[in-house]
Amino acid sequence: MDVTWFPVPRNRVQILGGFWKQWRDLIGKTTLFHQFDELKAEGHLDALSLDQKLHRGRAVGNDWYWGASIFWDSDLAKWLEAASARLEQERDPALEKLVDGVIERFQRAQLPDGYVNSHILTWRPQHRFKNLRDLHELYCAGHLIEAAVVHHEATGKDSLLGVARRYADLLCERFGEDPGKIPGYCGHPEIELALIRLYRLTGEARYLELSRFFIDERGRAPVYFDRERIERLDLREFRPNHPGSPYAYMQAHQPIREQTKVLGHAVRAMYLFAAVVDVGTLERDESLLNTAERLWRDVIDTKLYLTGGIGSASENEGFTRDFDLPNENAYAETCASIGLFLFAHRLLQNRLSSEFSDIMELALYNCILSGIGLDGKSFFYDNPLASAGNHSRLPWPWWCPCCPPNLARLISSLSGYLLSEGEAGIAIHNYVTCRAEFPGLRLVVKSGLPFSGENEITIETDRPIEKTLAFRVPNWTNNPELRINGQTPNTEAKDGYLHLHRVWSGGEKVELNFGMPVKQKFARFEVDADRGRTALTRGPLVYCIEQADNGPELDRYLVSNAAKFHAVDQKETLGGVTVLEGEAFRETGELSQLYSESAPKLESVTLRAIPYYAWANRGPGEMQIWMRRH
Amino acid sequence: MDVTWFPVPRNRVQILGGFWKQWRDLIGKTTLFHQFDELKAEGHLDALSLDQKLHRGRAVGNDWYWGASIFWDSDLAKWLEAASARLEQERDPALEKLVDGVIERFQRAQLPDGYVNSHILTWRPQHRFKNLRDLHELYCAGHLIEAAVVHHEATGKDSLLGVARRYADLLCERFGEDPGKIPGYCGHPEIELALIRLYRLTGEARYLELSRFFIDERGRAPVYFDRERIERLDLREFRPNHPGSPYAYMQAHQPIREQTKVLGHAVRAMYLFAAVVDVGTLERDESLLNTAERLWRDVIDTKLYLTGGIGSASENEGFTRDFDLPNENAYAETCASIGLFLFAHRLLQNRLSSEFSDIMELALYNCILSGIGLDGKSFFYDNPLASAGNHSRLPWPWWCPCCPPNLARLISSLSGYLLSEGEAGIAIHNYVTCRAEFPGLRLVVKSGLPFSGENEITIETDRPIEKTLAFRVPNWTNNPELRINGQTPNTEAKDGYLHLHRVWSGGEKVELNFGMPVKQKFARFEVDADRGRTALTRGPLVYCIEQADNGPELDRYLVSNAAKFHAVDQKETLGGVTVLEGEAFRETGELSQLYSESAPKLESVTLRAIPYYAWANRGPGEMQIWMRRH
Repeated sequence: MDVTWFPVPRNRVQILGGFWKQWRDLIGKTTLFHQFDELKAEGHLDALSLDQKLHRGRAVGNDWYWGASIFWDSDLAKWLEAASARLEQERDPALEKLVDGVIERFQRAQLPDGYVNSHILTWRPQHRFKNLRDLHELYCAGHLIEAAVVHHEATGKDSLLGVARRYADLLCERFGEDPGKIPGYCGHPEIELALIRLYRLTGEARYLELSRFFIDERGRAPVYFDRERIERLDLREFRPNHPGSPYAYMQAHQPIREQTKVLGHAVRAMYLFAAVVDVGTLERDESLLNTAERLWRDVIDTKLYLTGGIGSASENEGFTRDFDLPNENAYAETCASIGLFLFAHRLLQNRLSSEFSDIMELALYNCILSGIGLDGKSFFYDNPLASAGNHSRLPWPWWCPCCPPNLARLISSLSGYLLSEGEAGIAIHNYVTCRAEFPGLRLVVKSGLPFSGENEITIETDRPIEKTLAFRVPNWTNNPELRINGQTPNTEAKDGYLHLHRVWSGGEKVELNFGMPVKQKFARFEVDADRGRTALTRGPLVYCIEQADNGPELDRYLVSNAAKFHAVDQKETLGGVTVLEGEAFRETGELSQLYSESAPKLESVTLRAIPYYAWANRGPGEMQIWMRRH
Repeated sequence: MDVTWFPVPRNRVQILGGFWKQWRDLIGKTTLFHQFDELKAEGHLDALSLDQKLHRGRAVGNDWYWGASIFWDSDLAKWLEAASARLEQERDPALEKLVDGVIERFQRAQLPDGYVNSHILTWRPQHRFKNLRDLHELYCAGHLIEAAVVHHEATGKDSLLGVARRYADLLCERFGEDPGKIPGYCGHPEIELALIRLYRLTGEARYLELSRFFIDERGRAPVYFDRERIERLDLREFRPNHPGSPYAYMQAHQPIREQTKVLGHAVRAMYLFAAVVDVGTLERDESLLNTAERLWRDVIDTKLYLTGGIGSASENEGFTRDFDLPNENAYAETCASIGLFLFAHRLLQNRLSSEFSDIMELALYNCILSGIGLDGKSFFYDNPLASAGNHSRLPWPWWCPCCPPNLARLISSLSGYLLSEGEAGIAIHNYVTCRAEFPGLRLVVKSGLPFSGENEITIETDRPIEKTLAFRVPNWTNNPELRINGQTPNTEAKDGYLHLHRVWSGGEKVELNFGMPVKQKFARFEVDADRGRTALTRGPLVYCIEQADNGPELDRYLVSNAAKFHAVDQKETLGGVTVLEGEAFRETGELSQLYSESAPKLESVTLRAIPYYAWANRGPGEMQIWMRRH
């Protein structure tokens, strides 16, 4: 058993500059206010007045209150979490006023017994805890709890935490295996990991116990969803829009410990697995931890896009068969990649290995960041790896606005995902310009990522302190160099981390230079969508070619294995990026006949690639990550 | 205006040996009896007793009589046509007895006014001529008429011709623009070309006039199908399972002369266009002929598979957008390719150009012949250009058995498609070992096709005769050689035919040697399914690689533009074929990681390709026409 690590909390890590400071501030100054306006316009706030007449939700088919209304509370709560994390970093009275106003609405909507859910209370009060399968009731509760934890940590206030604890206590009363309790669990996992966060904040064991109950009960035969369905006289069997066991959609086709392949809805799977690691770690439950690592391997080895996206199919917003990774039709939901990030982060605390932190970085810089436009006010729900020019970010995916506030809360909370600490020392996972506080020690990190691999970490101490620092060596570098004050110290390399044990006097400068060559990537044969194709990466960034730089018909370009691409800094482009330029070929010749005996002619051209996350910011146009090989 | 040509009729051309004699005899001795048994088992014969209790059709959903029952008469009629053409070539009392028995059933089922249709009379007599859109009523009538024409030509009997003429006369009474007549036309064109055949046999102008009426009226606004729909109180608008104008499915979205792109169901389009050429030719209607050539160009330039298949989508059994030619999901229905063959044959009589006869040959040897197994008793409905191993021929596509008898009638009638005659001389389109009779002159053709390009044509005359012979030069040969008795005569090359004018004394031997190199074919860029891929052809045959020869994972093979493939005769393989063998590369290396920095490794291998038509005769397995290029 490995030594357990703990994330260094957000409020001890201050992001000071560089790439992520820009993004954090864009989110804080623009995105959160834009999202508040959209949530308000779509009726999420009015919904909490529990007055049908005030609802201004949009019609979805003939059932206008069905669509986004089951997410009314959760998306508002995700926004609260994001805004709270922002307030933790920067005082902003205008934002705080909005936050307090939303919290007041939750307080007023909460029933005396602790229950609060605007969709249920407004539209179907008789269905309270009666359709856990579809109605996202505990999912909404989970996001409310997460928001409350962060709001309390960020502001010290108990206003939302009180709401959340009363609701969580009600859930502890109503759910469980004891007679008279509901032996069910939510169709969309989320409550499980939220209860763990509440447990960590409050120390109340019942929250951990309820989370464990939800995890253990899930998938036991007969599946609870059938029982509740028949109890509410619904005779229609559950038939999601995809083949296979219907409850695999929600990872309830079998008990979690028996699951070997990742199936179903990608976000649900990731949130569940994150909680599985949490409970496994807290209770040292090897069966849960082994399950989580097994399912992790399945995702990473057979179902991961080069961008860190997961869940290739729109039909189930999730997984299909191994290696089914289409590019133009990739679903790769922003939330799913966020879920993968959260899952990896949990695994990382249990076993310090860069296989987890590499994927966190990959997902963050590529699939997740692709989910928001450079204007901070437009969003992708799905993040394809190729486009014929018909894929644009929207101001608000009103039919299911889950991704935008999820992305906002992740970036606003980013400082809490960068480092871990434990008895074994301090581990630095992701290099971001920041200052991190520890008892008697501070780390000041300057990082050139994602465009330069040069990092400098200054150690400040009150007095000499003996401590191991473990530095992640990213999997994209071939020649990591670590120096302390210009000297190369002895380090121990283990699972992708360089461990450096010494007495730190303060004032040491650790230089970490990660060579960042342009690389070509090739997919294994089984991925038919990428067969005969190559993709460019540099450092943590996946690159793509876009019509704005290279003209239309991008699939006319071919790149040879030997092609040299070089990095060019462009401060004026796309908010300041490093682009790649290199030699390629372009198929020319306009045949008038369908079929010819002459192979297509090629001409040499210069191709320009941009970071994938920055695509679709210059109007409609084609995009391609996987280019044809020559 | 070009000189008109006339097909040399079947009964003046006797196929004597070689490739097509084998196929003709397999059809005559095996296929026709197998198909009769299947038609009988599926209730097509009993249906003509007009007694519901006798029907043994299969259930299709909850509506068992809907599915194949609208095709009951047409598929039986196609079989009658095939069997009649067989009887024309070979006496076969057993077959003749079956034919006569079926004809008697049609005679008994016919009503005094001439009407006959087992589906309508059994299941929905109130719908007679009330749902021309869906019920295939005139389509069935058309196939009955075609069968009757061939039966009469083949046997001299009037038994079926009488039925057909009485029915055709009823149609002439009931349909047309005069007051009191039905101003409609069939959802599935077929009656139009059938009436032309009946007109050519009988000389009765009313059949030509009715055909022309159907063609002219089709697509005029308001579309007749809406009128009849409202008359039968059906308020549901027609919504076929594909986007675009609904009546484009049946080429009734606009008048034929205004149509510029081929849309909708592929078989319907081809049958309609064939009749358009017929009427245009007979009436020298330039507007119809120009329309037909324009639509022909659209098919050939933008919607044709390398195999001569057309209609790429299963959703509408037809056409989609230009260059949408997926391989594994190709629909490419056997009947559609037969329709293309018939359309080309009509155009060829109007304008002698090898662009038509090349396509006839291509479709015949590839997509069409793929539709039947080497056992003569198994059939493809759709003919994909690649398979993951899950595509097998069936003994009978009972839900819509249109293709098997259509294929049987085409091959049984093949002798009628080989040559044309006219004032300008005699044209030889397709080289098949046969004897063709002309007034005062006979041609004896020996052909090595499809495996050898050597042909010998001996001219027999009663006395010296001055005549132009026009020999098609296939588009697959680079170096045609024509010699008469060893000498190279003066010829005039025009539109892909070598015209040779002279006085024939009899005994001349014309040697036509068509070099038949292995060729690689490349699709134009717009065909994304074939991008970066190459296909092998030799002579008229498209080749494919199959798992039985090359193992699984065929997409691991890469073929360079410079690869040499050579032809190897294999008498023992697949009924005797010439295979192609050549050097290729195979991607090796079993990566355990999804993405790697190492390009896949290649090893040199020998690849074997077989004629496409002969695939899927050695058990389930992968197949591929378009191979990856190196």
